[in-house]
Formats: sequence, structure tokens, C-alpha cells
Amino acid sequence: MHFMTKSNPIGVFDSGIGGLTVVKQIKNLLPNENIVYFGDTARVPYGSKSNATVIEYALQDAQFLLKKNVKLIVVACNTVSSVALQVLRDKINLPIIGMISPGAKMALKETANKKIGVIGTYATVNNKAYSKEIMKFDKKSKVFEKACPLFVPFAEEGWLNTEATKFVAKEYLKELKEKEIESLILGCTHYPLLHEVIQEAIGDKVKLIDSGIAVSYEVREYLQARNLLNDSAAKGEDLYFVSDLPEKFRTVAELFLGNKIKHLQKIDLEEEIK
Amino acid sequence: MHFMTKSNPIGVFDSGIGGLTVVKQIKNLLPNENIVYFGDTARVPYGSKSNATVIEYALQDAQFLLKKNVKLIVVACNTVSSVALQVLRDKINLPIIGMISPGAKMALKETANKKIGVIGTYATVNNKAYSKEIMKFDKKSKVFEKACPLFVPFAEEGWLNTEATKFVAKEYLKELKEKEIESLILGCTHYPLLHEVIQEAIGDKVKLIDSGIAVSYEVREYLQARNLLNDSAAKGEDLYFVSDLPEKFRTVAELFLGNKIKHLQKIDLEEEIK
Repeated sequence: MHFMTKSNPIGVFDSGIGGLTVVKQIKNLLPNENIVYFGDTARVPYGSKSNATVIEYALQDAQFLLKKNVKLIVVACNTVSSVALQVLRDKINLPIIGMISPGAKMALKETANKKIGVIGTYATVNNKAYSKEIMKFDKKSKVFEKACPLFVPFAEEGWLNTEATKFVAKEYLKELKEKEIESLILGCTHYPLLHEVIQEAIGDKVKLIDSGIAVSYEVREYLQARNLLNDSAAKGEDLYFVSDLPEKFRTVAELFLGNKIKHLQKIDLEEEIK
Repeated sequence: MHFMTKSNPIGVFDSGIGGLTVVKQIKNLLPNENIVYFGDTARVPYGSKSNATVIEYALQDAQFLLKKNVKLIVVACNTVSSVALQVLRDKINLPIIGMISPGAKMALKETANKKIGVIGTYATVNNKAYSKEIMKFDKKSKVFEKACPLFVPFAEEGWLNTEATKFVAKEYLKELKEKEIESLILGCTHYPLLHEVIQEAIGDKVKLIDSGIAVSYEVREYLQARNLLNDSAAKGEDLYFVSDLPEKFRTVAELFLGNKIKHLQKIDLEEEIK
């Protein structure tokens, strides 16, 4: 591991733009931290790809961040976290924080009756990543998972609260609604954008768990314990790198980040990690 | 160019599974032809990527088919056809048929009042591929284009006729409905699956143009003129290759093809075209 100082940036990567909702939460909690983000927009989405492919891509993404001297890596993608976290930890010589464990722990804290719902991509749900993690902490929990693949394109299209979005949410969540869950994990980084529609469809009494918020607390805890929190008085600097730069990228990215993006650069991933 | 015989296969490629609706039409019209299909499922979708990236990928896809000794290449993807057709024709030493020109010509034949609608991905619509092609044949035409990006995930999710699909179609097509178009080009290979909902939203009087059908006629014409139609009495053989093989692939692919897939193989594209 490189020698780390407080001013080294936090590295965050995702298959595309979803991870920006996690960056939003990290910036919110830790505004003085520098951040380097990589979105693999040339190969997005990972959620419909095989596990072997996702692992290969994730290792490349992490290598890029390693070269940027980040002090830790946040895997801001539930699919990658559910498929590749162990391989990343084995092969990348840096602390790595994924989405699943922080989200699972937060849900357990918020759920008295131990019934927890999880929504995510096919990959995340088929891997039962959240169920396994929750069971590690509390074997008496009951976890109900449901893939909601159409939520991603709705979020990216900016159709956050249309009639169609509401219908899709109602359709996807009708099974979960009968399970008496007390909390629902938003197990995909796109889903916080559809917060309102999801809350309406699942009902007021169910607490929505944004894994991005859970991750931001975990990042703070990790850095605090190692005296690596950036104590600069200045606001942190964010650098955003992508492997492809489609026309609409900036608009959609800023919707996800909830902020303007200053430094945005397209890179050739293979060249960068040579 | 290699020496071609009647039994050489027809090569078809797409970024993923959409092109299978085109294969369906080719098999329908020319059941004795052998077909080699390549779907670049590891890098799907192309529609949200930059033109430079789409061109690079398309050249690799075509090189793979070239190695399979195909007698012609069908670019069964509107986005690739609208972005990369000229480069493909410049660099690949084989006849290449794209989606745009056949679809445009068929629409003109079906449209007395010269008002034509086009729906497709952002990439296809932003490139104004159909408008430019239609104008080449008839400068007095009026073409109205509209991107309908959510149709693709709806088709892949198999939500072909739900309330949400209907709402999305109505929302996307409401502008076009006021333009007095007589025909509407389905400018994305996924859209024929949503045929019913699109017809309902745009109204009975508008003729839907499936570019896949237009392409199958163009393929027949091309092969007939060169005496290259397969005159074997046996049914043709289809080989399907993909760059990634996610769990649900076969199910969704067979929905698009409208048929069972016998030979399906995952390949390493870079290795194959070395």
C-alpha cells in the first residue's frame, strides 16, 4: 500500500453514472474530502453481464483509481459489490468499501420486526447479496428481494414521477407490499432518484434505506479511525473520469450528483492502466 | 473479397439482441439461407455511446463475421447503421446492408402525403439518419423524428403490452400524432416487439414500417442479382455468437427471434479477430 495522507482523494467507481448518487452522499457528509470518480460509461451497464465479465471490468476500474493515489476505494455499484468485492479485496492493495454491507447494517438498525425488502438489478437480486449479508448479522431476519430493472432507464431518462413510473413501481412492488416489511433497501444506486414514487408504491410506513448514505457513514468511520479524514478548511476537489462521453452525459450526471460537474474527462482505460 | 458461393452464410451483427428481429424477417423470407449472428452483449448498448466508440466496435464486429466467410453483412442495428455504415463500407471488403436505406425507401412507397414519422434511440434520432436518407430520394418529404429510449428496456423486460408500456407509448408519440403522418418507421430493432402498443398509440391509420422486413427484401434482391441465393432444398443453419452470455440471454433472445436457438456460443471477440 502507498503511504497515505489526509489529502489523498477518496476513489469511487461505478459502471456508469449511478455511483454519483453515492458521491452526492459522501460530499454531503464529508465536504472537505477530495474525490476521484471513474464511470465506465463505454461498457455500461454491468447488471446484465456475466459475473466473470463484471469481475474483469471491476479490477480494471479499481486499477485506474489506484494510479490516482486514492486513500480508499468505494465500489459505488451494487452489482459490482455483490459480484466482485472479494476478488477486489484479494487483488487490490487498498481498503475497499462496497454497497452491500453498509446498506444491510443500516436496514437491520431500522427494522424492529426483522422483515426487510430489497430491490435491485437482476444481477444483485440473483446473487442474493443483501440476503446473505443480513443473515450474517441476524439469522432470524426475513429478507424479500425483487429485481426492478426498468427503474434504471426511467431514472436515466429523468422520468422520475410520471404516471408510467408510478405504474411500474406499483407493479414491481405489489408482492413486497404483502410481506409486512418495515424497511426497503434501495439496492441500486439509481433508485434514490425514484425515492418519491417508490415510497408512494410501498406505502408510508416502510422506511427506505439509501445504501449511499450508509456508505458515506462507513467511509467517515474508516477514515476517522485511521486519522485520515481530510482536515483542510477548503472544500474538496472532485475529478470525474469516464471511459466514454456520450452527448447527454453531463446533464444526466448532474441530475444524479445534484450538483454541477467542473472537471470531466474522457480517458482510455486500457492506456491508463498499462 | 473472398470467392463467394451460394452456401456461404449471411452475416448479421448487432450490439445485442435487437438484431434478432431482423434475423427473424430474413429467415422468414429466405428460409434456406445459412446465418451467422454476432451480438456484442458484453458492450451493449451502443445507442448511448459516442460515435467514435460505436465505429470502433462496429469494425470489430464486422471483422468477426468476415472470418466466418459470410457472403454479405447485415448491420442489424439502426444506431450502428446511422453512425458507422460508411466507415464499414470503406474498410470491410464485403457488401454491407444497413437498416436505414431499406426502411426509408419502404416508408416512401407507403406514404402518399409524404409525411413520415421516425422513432428510434437518441443516437439514431440525433444523427437524423432517416431524415437524410428520405430527403435523398424525395426532397419534398416531411420527416418527424422522436427518440423513444424507454421502449428498449420494456421490450427486453418482456413488458410488451402493460399499462405502463401503453402510457409510455402515448407520451412519446403524442407530438407525432399531430403531424398527420401516414407512416411511422420503427427505427430501432427492438420496436417491432411493441408493435401493438405503438399502433394503438399512433392510431390505426398510420402504417408501421418494420425496417427488418425492408432489409430482408434488400438482402434477397442483392443475392438474386448476383446469383448467390442459397438454392439448397434444406433449411438453413443458424449460428449465434455473443461476446457475453448473461443468465437470461436465451429466454429474451428467443422472444426476439420468435424461435428456438440451437447453436449459441460465447466468444472472446478480441481473440477471434486477432
